[in-house]
Amino acid sequence: MPERPLPTRAEVDAYLKDRRNWGRWGADDQIGAMNLVTPQKRAQAAALVRNGRTVSLSREFPKNPAPNNPTPAQHFMRTIDRGAGGGAIDFYGISYHGQASTHLDSLCHVWNQDGMWNGRAPSDEIGFDGARWGAVTNWSTGIITRGVLLDVPRFRNEPFVTQERPIHGWELEDVARAQNVQLEPGDALIVYGGREAWDRSNPTWGAGPSRPGLHASCLPFIRDNDVSLLVWDMMDMAPNGYDIAWSVHGVIFAYGVGLVDNALLEPLALACAEERRYAFMLMVLPLVVPGGTGSPVNPIAMF
Amino acid sequence: MPERPLPTRAEVDAYLKDRRNWGRWGADDQIGAMNLVTPQKRAQAAALVRNGRTVSLSREFPKNPAPNNPTPAQHFMRTIDRGAGGGAIDFYGISYHGQASTHLDSLCHVWNQDGMWNGRAPSDEIGFDGARWGAVTNWSTGIITRGVLLDVPRFRNEPFVTQERPIHGWELEDVARAQNVQLEPGDALIVYGGREAWDRSNPTWGAGPSRPGLHASCLPFIRDNDVSLLVWDMMDMAPNGYDIAWSVHGVIFAYGVGLVDNALLEPLALACAEERRYAFMLMVLPLVVPGGTGSPVNPIAMF
Amino acid sequence: MPERPLPTRAEVDAYLKDRRNWGRWGADDQIGAMNLVTPQKRAQAAALVRNGRTVSLSREFPKNPAPNNPTPAQHFMRTIDRGAGGGAIDFYGISYHGQASTHLDSLCHVWNQDGMWNGRAPSDEIGFDGARWGAVTNWSTGIITRGVLLDVPRFRNEPFVTQERPIHGWELEDVARAQNVQLEPGDALIVYGGREAWDRSNPTWGAGPSRPGLHASCLPFIRDNDVSLLVWDMMDMAPNGYDIAWSVHGVIFAYGVGLVDNALLEPLALACAEERRYAFMLMVLPLVVPGGTGSPVNPIAMF
Amino acid sequence: MPERPLPTRAEVDAYLKDRRNWGRWGADDQIGAMNLVTPQKRAQAAALVRNGRTVSLSREFPKNPAPNNPTPAQHFMRTIDRGAGGGAIDFYGISYHGQASTHLDSLCHVWNQDGMWNGRAPSDEIGFDGARWGAVTNWSTGIITRGVLLDVPRFRNEPFVTQERPIHGWELEDVARAQNVQLEPGDALIVYGGREAWDRSNPTWGAGPSRPGLHASCLPFIRDNDVSLLVWDMMDMAPNGYDIAWSVHGVIFAYGVGLVDNALLEPLALACAEERRYAFMLMVLPLVVPGGTGSPVNPIAMF
Repeated sequence: MPERPLPTRAEVDAYLKDRRNWGRWGADDQIGAMNLVTPQKRAQAAALVRNGRTVSLSREFPKNPAPNNPTPAQHFMRTIDRGAGGGAIDFYGISYHGQASTHLDSLCHVWNQDGMWNGRAPSDEIGFDGARWGAVTNWSTGIITRGVLLDVPRFRNEPFVTQERPIHGWELEDVARAQNVQLEPGDALIVYGGREAWDRSNPTWGAGPSRPGLHASCLPFIRDNDVSLLVWDMMDMAPNGYDIAWSVHGVIFAYGVGLVDNALLEPLALACAEERRYAFMLMVLPLVVPGGTGSPVNPIAMF
Repeated sequence: MPERPLPTRAEVDAYLKDRRNWGRWGADDQIGAMNLVTPQKRAQAAALVRNGRTVSLSREFPKNPAPNNPTPAQHFMRTIDRGAGGGAIDFYGISYHGQASTHLDSLCHVWNQDGMWNGRAPSDEIGFDGARWGAVTNWSTGIITRGVLLDVPRFRNEPFVTQERPIHGWELEDVARAQNVQLEPGDALIVYGGREAWDRSNPTWGAGPSRPGLHASCLPFIRDNDVSLLVWDMMDMAPNGYDIAWSVHGVIFAYGVGLVDNALLEPLALACAEERRYAFMLMVLPLVVPGGTGSPVNPIAMF
Repeated sequence: MPERPLPTRAEVDAYLKDRRNWGRWGADDQIGAMNLVTPQKRAQAAALVRNGRTVSLSREFPKNPAPNNPTPAQHFMRTIDRGAGGGAIDFYGISYHGQASTHLDSLCHVWNQDGMWNGRAPSDEIGFDGARWGAVTNWSTGIITRGVLLDVPRFRNEPFVTQERPIHGWELEDVARAQNVQLEPGDALIVYGGREAWDRSNPTWGAGPSRPGLHASCLPFIRDNDVSLLVWDMMDMAPNGYDIAWSVHGVIFAYGVGLVDNALLEPLALACAEERRYAFMLMVLPLVVPGGTGSPVNPIAMF
Repeated sequence: MPERPLPTRAEVDAYLKDRRNWGRWGADDQIGAMNLVTPQKRAQAAALVRNGRTVSLSREFPKNPAPNNPTPAQHFMRTIDRGAGGGAIDFYGISYHGQASTHLDSLCHVWNQDGMWNGRAPSDEIGFDGARWGAVTNWSTGIITRGVLLDVPRFRNEPFVTQERPIHGWELEDVARAQNVQLEPGDALIVYGGREAWDRSNPTWGAGPSRPGLHASCLPFIRDNDVSLLVWDMMDMAPNGYDIAWSVHGVIFAYGVGLVDNALLEPLALACAEERRYAFMLMVLPLVVPGGTGSPVNPIAMF
């Protein structure tokens, strides 16, 4: 692969500022790029189903402390008596953002110096009771769309993406071409970086200040293709190389794109290879938490 | 509607004991009636999609104390600084069983004097770390099947089901016939009782020891039709009239059927009426919690 | 007891504004009236000990839902294996403010239109990570002082204080005189209203919008006597009768006084009667929670 | 200091088995060695107070993830509106056992192959709702007694105890003699190992599988002196060298002694040096949690 010059800081700033989708669906819009997932789009996604094979893109609820899981999820059990019978109930508690839990980020999750999605000010919108703007409830009817997996390790013929060689936007174009798949508006873009393979031969991904992943050069690819949801296992590389608050995570506030962080993609990549197709129906159904900044989810791909 | 004699205690006991599905899919099976949701079944469910309209069957995450919500869900916010930018993160905590949260019950959730699903002993299987048998992770690839709504208030031409007149199994047959819909093996049976209408003119449903809902006479209907998932807003009536630990909830341990408790069905009933169809694609995607007894969910129906 | 005219709204406002202690210990002081609890005062409190009898002023950790406990405390168990041995550990979670838990309020807990203790603005001082002003850590070396119990039911010869007849400041004077005890600067004033007796013949105290307790007329008594800590079982009556944000709770921001809410005082009243003394050593040892607005506590009186 | 032979495994087993206090205060006793803290003992402790100086032995509520804090404590804020005024409330959640939080262990916390305190079986006594035997509520009237600090770093003239040179029972005798202090029945023994100094020049104490601290040879010292409470910063060394479930922690189930783990002792050691005395009044006031295995505490020493 020929070397390409990296975008300059000014170019990255322009990706996030000049090309942003603010106002595209109205100044008061809190749906963002999910507006592109129309009922028709959903129906088309369902029409992709052939054999009914399903694959979960969710890691296990991260109950165990780990270097990339400093605030483990809580799971506590209780039992209830009912005469000769009974029952078991449990408590789930989770700070789902971070590097451990498979979760959806909603449009209120992050911002930069220019503000939140559609220009709102976090000081006005983020309160002790939740977010008043861009909460996850804007997507309560579910995110059901066409999912397209781009399998970077397979394209590179390497087990996983490395710190030295992040995923660039132009590489995503190449991968899509090699896989003979084209992105369409409203799609969920799923970028597989080989996190499980990484974890098998490296310290746990996400444990330290640096981590391999997507480069800010991916921003135009996401914007040009009118992606609605970005699903990824490795997320944006750190450090991002531009000393900006958020690089690829910036698609949230700049383009109105949702993210599914920490997806489990190895089984999906295997299924795509077996099924010989990289586009399928994807379902992401967030919990209906008023004011919530996202949701733990179990995304399911169906072939 | 002519009066029908109620089943005797011996008959109800026989529903739960003589007709149980133990061993049907092997002595070590933890999937239960969800075995009937084959890939083909899922593909058929997807094929039901026509216009892509989606309806959420989830109530809001129950953060507010209420008579039927004695242990409210927790939602706590925090913010993170990123130089000129930042982010908002939150903690979700919930004891989701009970009468407030829309949630899935897995096969370990309840048992009677004969034991758990497939005859396992709760003392062996329920531990401080979770359930070792029938945990929700057995359904991690998602419950995606044909959903069939039976709209009891519409059939009765009354706003909601009352304590005096519970939903009987023979009435479900009548409703299905009137709606011109037939249940098929592996279906999700969705029984609408009018909970929102009840709440508008009564003390909150589920607040006290008595509550209207399904009668134990529904058990044979569920078993005969090889239902895989029961989705309901009013659940089994209380008291159940037979002084047994669990009446309709007994489908969990007797038949291996999953439950979605506290579903929000008024919008779905409205959509079915508008769409003039009572069968559709249903998606229930539980969180992947090892040892978990169920999951809060946002079930989505797609037309 | 002759009727006394109630203070006017203007008088109550003046109690909280004109007589406030702001600046008394410096503009940057976060210790408040606890400044009056000097080492000498603590040593004098210890010198009150004669027979070593101790009484707990704490209710049980409120794990059970109740009308006055809408967000019950969490207690979850786990076990750990150690070969042939093992251990049991548990999680405690609590929103301790409210009407159920015995807890200490620190100086950041409440404010009115004039601001927090010493005039600080809550918008500046209350953040997602905790309070930056008046946090409970200002009292981390413990509140150990002379406690004085005023036993209102005994004085009235009635089992408990009623809504119709709140506790007034002039009555506290009368009770102290009848008990032959005098308040001194830095004392913990403990006002017993008969909450347990109330609960035995009424709906649970604190369950509804109205509740018997202390009238705003108690404010001058607290200020005049330079009380450092107010310990009470019934707290300020509700409604407070003046349509102000906080009546007796206003001692927090106006005088810099700490509160121990929901104390269990029936056993203490009994012990005082048996010991024939109403002054004793009191210990309140808050957890060291940076930014915390108070702490669950187990206050101990020692005779 | 001359080398002394280490006790054999058989000797350590005998410390925990042959010398145990089971039955000493009756077969049904759940108070344990705290029986030695009589009212007279408490009054004597109070009589030790001279100048009223107080020192907290509590670390900060451990909210931050750290190598020795894999499940950080939770602190979440909320605000409440009251017209022109308002309030701040917060949630505290903590799994307080482990190496981070200053906390009290009650008699149900640990056991070995012979069982819990007084021979009870953990399988009978430890339930999902809490411990039915040896819960912290047995000490709800507070632990108030004479505290004696043994300052090992000062005795050794070294900043902290090391892995290579654990604290032995015979050294505790030497330290007491050098400090000219004698232990008496019912005392709280406070063993300072220099944890803060350790942390300043080593990886955080308690982060890994090995850690310096007290050797099993301390068991007879604790038993011979009829200690009621052991307060320590470094706890028992790990590995304990005998491949037993619990070494010095065994004082809980063998002798009925309470522990305050992870105490903050550097300030106390400084105060003792300044005050030229190593005996003082100590107060440990656990929260009243039914079924609880201990409590986070803020122990206070008063001179």
